[in-house]
Amino acid sequence: MGGDRGAAAVVAGMADSLAHCPDLHFLVHGSEPELASLIAKRPELAGRATICHAEGVVTMEDKPSQVMRHGQATSMWSTLDAVRDGRAAAAVSCGNTGALMALSMIRLRKLPGINRPAIACLWPNRTARGFAVMLDVGADIKADAPDLLQYALMGASYARNGLGLSRPRVGLLNVGTEEHKGRAEIREAQDLIAAATEAGTFDYVGFVEGSDLPSGRVDVIVTDGFTGNIALKTGEGTAKLIGDFLREAFNSTLLSRLGALLALGSLRALQQRIDPRRVNGGVFLGLNGTVVKSHGSADATGVSAAIQLARRLAASGFTERLKARVASAAAAGQDARTEAGEKNGTAE
Amino acid sequence: MGGDRGAAAVVAGMADSLAHCPDLHFLVHGSEPELASLIAKRPELAGRATICHAEGVVTMEDKPSQVMRHGQATSMWSTLDAVRDGRAAAAVSCGNTGALMALSMIRLRKLPGINRPAIACLWPNRTARGFAVMLDVGADIKADAPDLLQYALMGASYARNGLGLSRPRVGLLNVGTEEHKGRAEIREAQDLIAAATEAGTFDYVGFVEGSDLPSGRVDVIVTDGFTGNIALKTGEGTAKLIGDFLREAFNSTLLSRLGALLALGSLRALQQRIDPRRVNGGVFLGLNGTVVKSHGSADATGVSAAIQLARRLAASGFTERLKARVASAAAAGQDARTEAGEKNGTAE
Repeated sequence: MGGDRGAAAVVAGMADSLAHCPDLHFLVHGSEPELASLIAKRPELAGRATICHAEGVVTMEDKPSQVMRHGQATSMWSTLDAVRDGRAAAAVSCGNTGALMALSMIRLRKLPGINRPAIACLWPNRTARGFAVMLDVGADIKADAPDLLQYALMGASYARNGLGLSRPRVGLLNVGTEEHKGRAEIREAQDLIAAATEAGTFDYVGFVEGSDLPSGRVDVIVTDGFTGNIALKTGEGTAKLIGDFLREAFNSTLLSRLGALLALGSLRALQQRIDPRRVNGGVFLGLNGTVVKSHGSADATGVSAAIQLARRLAASGFTERLKARVASAAAAGQDARTEAGEKNGTAE
Repeated sequence: MGGDRGAAAVVAGMADSLAHCPDLHFLVHGSEPELASLIAKRPELAGRATICHAEGVVTMEDKPSQVMRHGQATSMWSTLDAVRDGRAAAAVSCGNTGALMALSMIRLRKLPGINRPAIACLWPNRTARGFAVMLDVGADIKADAPDLLQYALMGASYARNGLGLSRPRVGLLNVGTEEHKGRAEIREAQDLIAAATEAGTFDYVGFVEGSDLPSGRVDVIVTDGFTGNIALKTGEGTAKLIGDFLREAFNSTLLSRLGALLALGSLRALQQRIDPRRVNGGVFLGLNGTVVKSHGSADATGVSAAIQLARRLAASGFTERLKARVASAAAAGQDARTEAGEKNGTAE
């Protein structure tokens, strides 16, 4: 109910995703009359969607702390409780990110051993598969070294289950690739992550820079939620600027309009390749349950992509796999922490 | 001497810039035999370049601390001393950024009242002028609230003298535009900057997000050097990825190749519009003297852009103006700091 385009975009996305994944069944949370009327207009959803009435809506302006205290009657709360109670295999929301993460923490709870859950996004790159995972892109504005280690483990697990990469290459986002660069917590995290590659079944490529996000040199980019959020939005904004400039360039002369017409097929393929709606869906990692956060402004195509991603993760038993991975890596991580602590002369 | 393409790209850039600014005279620092041979091949440089021999070179791998201790004989040191002694109006270097900033700090010294100098870059956006200023993009990995205020003052001054904006719109980079978002130092800086708009002659637009860097909603984007460096490189990397994808798309079929040929004029104009070499030149702000850091991999066009920027700033008396601005804003800033300290209940 709380996305920028309201319930209509969500119901349209449900219908679209059903065309790709015919085995889906939806629990739709929100205003019964509004949802019933939207669903009635889509015959393909008949028998595929159950409405769970919820009176309240979390708006984009609501503060997470208020929603945590007074949000019991909202569609967001109802959605997460369906996952909590095992009635739903995964949750998808276009709503307020901060509130969704805060509610997810109290309703689903963190996985054992996880300090800070994270939001992971997909980033277009030069690899054949076409994407890298970046996390955290906004669950928490800070992360210390053990948090960054957990992001590496969770990101690698997501890359295996979401992208099918058997041994993902993990990198730590920094302002340079030299060992002495960056903040203290990043240099400390470097040691922790390097020591956890076997337990986490990933390769560690070292520090990576902003230019490496799309370079294809790394599959999982680890960073704190402040930096990750700004990198994500900078990349999106830059891509949009160039797209707009490109459209202007093609419209500027008759000759260029004709040229664009001839190249239309190739340009459409390019657009498809970098279409942000294709990679729509920030995945919340580190919780007892799968939550996919769709872009607030997502249209039917975007919502559908988020639903399909949620389905893929649910079908792979992702939460259980991640839980097992974190548990088995905890011992190795603990060893590494002790070592790194000694090496850096810290007490931790 | 220390750029990725060596002295040849620098000498080529000097020749190119002379075509745009015929009044230039160069002091070129480095290996006399190498520079003499390169300059001899360019008749347009005859009588326009004086070689200042320096035996040593600061490499990209050298640590700033080592260069500060043992770098006296290098071309970088010699370049900065020419500004220090008043023999040069501005310095341009393609070398090691960290070493250049460290040497600039000890040879040129910080302006009175400046705590952390910053590096400012230009960022393509949707405005008619075509650029925003972002700082810090890598002088220092951290910045507290008073530093961010100084960045706002310095960035506004640069936008006035470098871009000709009489009253720049300043924004503070954050993970959301709501007042409660972000780290403590950013929320504190918000109050300081909002209180300094009259003294600094700028408008404060509030928090901006990564997507606002190219949006045209803001002329000066203030952030710490860690975040700014990652945003800059992410934007550059994304632009490069899309450019490469676009080239592939145009080469993919005969029809699209023909289309590209027809649209060539418009595409060239687009390329020019987003060409990173046009905005080449990170300006060091907050020092007694103008230093422009060109991209390490800059070619003749890039070096020429950096030289022209240095000339424009030197001609505007930028350092003196900035110095006066910082001094006059110091009192207002001090008032604002006291107020903000009281408001936030901090002791500062």
